Amino acid sequence: MLSTHGVETALNLVGILAFALSGALLGVRRQFDIVGMAVLATVTAIGGGIIRDVMIGAVPPAALNNPSWLVLPLVATLLTFRWHPQVRRMHRAVELFDAVGLGVFCATATVKAIEYGVHPLASVLLGCITGVGGGLIRDVLAGVTPAVLRKDSRLYVVPAVVGCAIVAVASAFGPVDIGVQAAGALVIVLLRGLALWRGWTAPVPRMFDSQGE
Amino acid sequence: MLSTHGVETALNLVGILAFALSGALLGVRRQFDIVGMAVLATVTAIGGGIIRDVMIGAVPPAALNNPSWLVLPLVATLLTFRWHPQVRRMHRAVELFDAVGLGVFCATATVKAIEYGVHPLASVLLGCITGVGGGLIRDVLAGVTPAVLRKDSRLYVVPAVVGCAIVAVASAFGPVDIGVQAAGALVIVLLRGLALWRGWTAPVPRMFDSQGE
Amino acid sequence: MLSTHGVETALNLVGILAFALSGALLGVRRQFDIVGMAVLATVTAIGGGIIRDVMIGAVPPAALNNPSWLVLPLVATLLTFRWHPQVRRMHRAVELFDAVGLGVFCATATVKAIEYGVHPLASVLLGCITGVGGGLIRDVLAGVTPAVLRKDSRLYVVPAVVGCAIVAVASAFGPVDIGVQAAGALVIVLLRGLALWRGWTAPVPRMFDSQGE
Repeated sequence: MLSTHGVETALNLVGILAFALSGALLGVRRQFDIVGMAVLATVTAIGGGIIRDVMIGAVPPAALNNPSWLVLPLVATLLTFRWHPQVRRMHRAVELFDAVGLGVFCATATVKAIEYGVHPLASVLLGCITGVGGGLIRDVLAGVTPAVLRKDSRLYVVPAVVGCAIVAVASAFGPVDIGVQAAGALVIVLLRGLALWRGWTAPVPRMFDSQGE
Repeated sequence: MLSTHGVETALNLVGILAFALSGALLGVRRQFDIVGMAVLATVTAIGGGIIRDVMIGAVPPAALNNPSWLVLPLVATLLTFRWHPQVRRMHRAVELFDAVGLGVFCATATVKAIEYGVHPLASVLLGCITGVGGGLIRDVLAGVTPAVLRKDSRLYVVPAVVGCAIVAVASAFGPVDIGVQAAGALVIVLLRGLALWRGWTAPVPRMFDSQGE
Repeated sequence: MLSTHGVETALNLVGILAFALSGALLGVRRQFDIVGMAVLATVTAIGGGIIRDVMIGAVPPAALNNPSWLVLPLVATLLTFRWHPQVRRMHRAVELFDAVGLGVFCATATVKAIEYGVHPLASVLLGCITGVGGGLIRDVLAGVTPAVLRKDSRLYVVPAVVGCAIVAVASAFGPVDIGVQAAGALVIVLLRGLALWRGWTAPVPRMFDSQGE
């Protein structure tokens, strides 16, 4: 029990760090100063969970009462500020950690939403918002087209939907235990990993000659 | 009583569908993939109402406990994905449905805000946020200048303000019944329709030679 | 006691007005119509405080039950619509008022967050969000890179962090009285004033030849 909780906490921190690094790196790429990097790192790391908590009425949001979740983005900012070429070169590791974060955030968020009495369908939406929302705010603040909307992006939301749906469906058959949660997270990590590895993208609407922008 | 409720529900769904179509169409225009289209369709359809509910403390927001409001944006996405040239050609109908959605959302939101004990002036603001907020998030996520801010846009916020104000003023004289709500919505639909038909725009500040950007 | 409260109220209104003017002026610069100006003025003035209140569960947000906070942005819009060259020429005064607003909003928000039982570290974050959040939304809606992220911006978030931290640290030693709050606000105004006067900027990550975008 304690060790399960310990594993979940550790994976959560891995995800927070990966999300924060992606925010800080985007700050470097957009040539922002260290304040801009810290803002992007923080919103990427805790933005999605805050939106979920506000929407289910779990206020103040968990992130605000979790000092390590507030400090880690600053650590990521300092690391990236000093060693951004090296951090960028580790992008395979950052992508993997990001997938772990996506899996853990989505699965635990779906469970939390169900515990707060939200409709199962909406709990899938809230799970996805938790995993994807921070990155959306990061991109909007930085003035770039959100990665998850672009047609050249590898599947990111789809793995999240599948993993959250597994948890939501399982919840119809009884209380969701840690095993189901882990299964949902694992499916997300695997699907996201496969999407990165095999270059999976989502379908794009067929364009016609007269439709060009 | 039942039929009144039925009419309101039907008009709500018309509005959700129109808002979702506008989101999905913008996704096509920006050349996003089907995931991007679904994200834009969903935020346009339910974003404004969620902001209102979070601000008045009505959590979880109504949209989350309303499966049809979550499914309809996906239906709109699939329709637009497959037949976007045809959907685009029906833009007059979409604009009309959008006006109906604006009217119904604004009027019902103003009533809901007043029922939650919000100041009448703020209830007008919340009514407008409900009607306009989803479209604002849609445009920000898609990386285009929000339609309602642009000087070439036909009046959209102004009809919303007028309709919400009618409901708010009426609320000072007693409980708001369905008639007042319908009157507020109707005024919005009519004013928006007139704005589209006659090309009404809002005033633009006078520019001076030295002010050009 | 009454006069202290009166001073705080007056400073709050000065801040609201300055924030609203910056929103309305950005609307002119981006060539929006009067509706766009009013939207930007309103979100700049009350956006940060609303995010804070929603996050700590103080709903409906204070801004919604404060008619003068809703009317002042409209006054700022009308003034700017008619006399924007003159308002722009007073930019020194607007910057000073903006600094006063930043100081008052940040310090009082930190106290409010602590009173709602938020962790001191998170209360600093909430204080900063209150002071900076409205401007962030303003810039995102207007389609410009947020001022506080840009490397050419004078220190804005850093003074906010320092002032909020003073209040948060003091709160560890007992209830925060108006003196501590005033000290925090004053430090923010002074640091922001110095940053503007001396051209202080935040450090920028070192770029290498191979890193250019």
